[in-house]
Amino acid sequence: MTLDALTQRLRDFASARGWEPFHHPKNLVMALSGEVGELISLFQWLTPEEAREYRSDSTLTTNVRDEIADVLLYLIQLADSLDIDLLEVGNAKVDRNETRFPPMQR
Amino acid sequence: MTLDALTQRLRDFASARGWEPFHHPKNLVMALSGEVGELISLFQWLTPEEAREYRSDSTLTTNVRDEIADVLLYLIQLADSLDIDLLEVGNAKVDRNETRFPPMQR
Amino acid sequence: MTLDALTQRLRDFASARGWEPFHHPKNLVMALSGEVGELISLFQWLTPEEAREYRSDSTLTTNVRDEIADVLLYLIQLADSLDIDLLEVGNAKVDRNETRFPPMQR
Amino acid sequence: MTLDALTQRLRDFASARGWEPFHHPKNLVMALSGEVGELISLFQWLTPEEAREYRSDSTLTTNVRDEIADVLLYLIQLADSLDIDLLEVGNAKVDRNETRFPPMQR
Repeated sequence: MTLDALTQRLRDFASARGWEPFHHPKNLVMALSGEVGELISLFQWLTPEEAREYRSDSTLTTNVRDEIADVLLYLIQLADSLDIDLLEVGNAKVDRNETRFPPMQR
Repeated sequence: MTLDALTQRLRDFASARGWEPFHHPKNLVMALSGEVGELISLFQWLTPEEAREYRSDSTLTTNVRDEIADVLLYLIQLADSLDIDLLEVGNAKVDRNETRFPPMQR
Repeated sequence: MTLDALTQRLRDFASARGWEPFHHPKNLVMALSGEVGELISLFQWLTPEEAREYRSDSTLTTNVRDEIADVLLYLIQLADSLDIDLLEVGNAKVDRNETRFPPMQR
Repeated sequence: MTLDALTQRLRDFASARGWEPFHHPKNLVMALSGEVGELISLFQWLTPEEAREYRSDSTLTTNVRDEIADVLLYLIQLADSLDIDLLEVGNAKVDRNETRFPPMQR
């Protein structure tokens, strides 16, 4: 499974449900933000160490995986609605970051 | 370029700069949330139609692509810090959504 | 009821439950962000007009009031943990905005 | 200065600049979310202890106060656009929380 295949799957999913009219950028960026809010709430009372060890709690593990998935799915749909190729812009940004933040000298 | 390759690139990037101690889940979910905040701010005063037509403004286009990239890069790093495979959990979530939200009858 | 009185009420509430150790700035800003995410999710699929007319839906009205309250309560607690006077910094910011954004000429 | 007075000041500010058409709930909840994103980004790489001691860094102190102010100003304007009294809903929520979360027994 690739990111392209998942993108196509989400297009088909929305189309089969007549949801396309709702899936424009302004709505999708709000949906993305809402899901990130749900994700952050899972970690808010944990110490950094507890957050790292989240898999010791099986309910938390399920919830984290579920919310990470929701964030990804809305990010894909938002990028698709903006006609942006996620991997392309992600790579281009790392290229720029290589210049902005030179590696440490050893 | 695949999502796996970009993930590896981000690991190498953080490692070369000694940033790994900062890249734990609690910090990364905050960084993700901060970038989504920057992204949402680009659309806040636009009508739904203007948001859709964002490419008619070249500065906005550059900024949207840049912020979408930042969101992706932190989502990848967050998932990596949690040892979660993004495409796997994304697909599993669409499987569940297929059941939760049956397609419209025609 | 004033903002000061509500702030004191929240201090007493946290103290009576032994929650103070969790109520430090890093956690509280995450909690604030999580509640804003819940609030934004209430509006994500609405048109601007539907959002304006939210009171025509009684469940939505209850939820909006509830989430606005949660955002306020965490903002108060975050500011309190930072020893920041909300009304003071809010007024000072409007002072600066008066200079940054001169009123329209008529 | 009271919350009511600051609310009125923000109404006058928006009116004098012709910004009212932009200040409807869907836009304002996005603006609120964007400002919370800026606030959270100030704390993302800090340890809980460093976040607590933010006043040892004067630039950070200025930025934190500025972003807290922005969050408050948009929350006030959002509540105003929804015709919600912040202190009323905040107090009502603490009332409910008193019931939901009984204090610890000593």
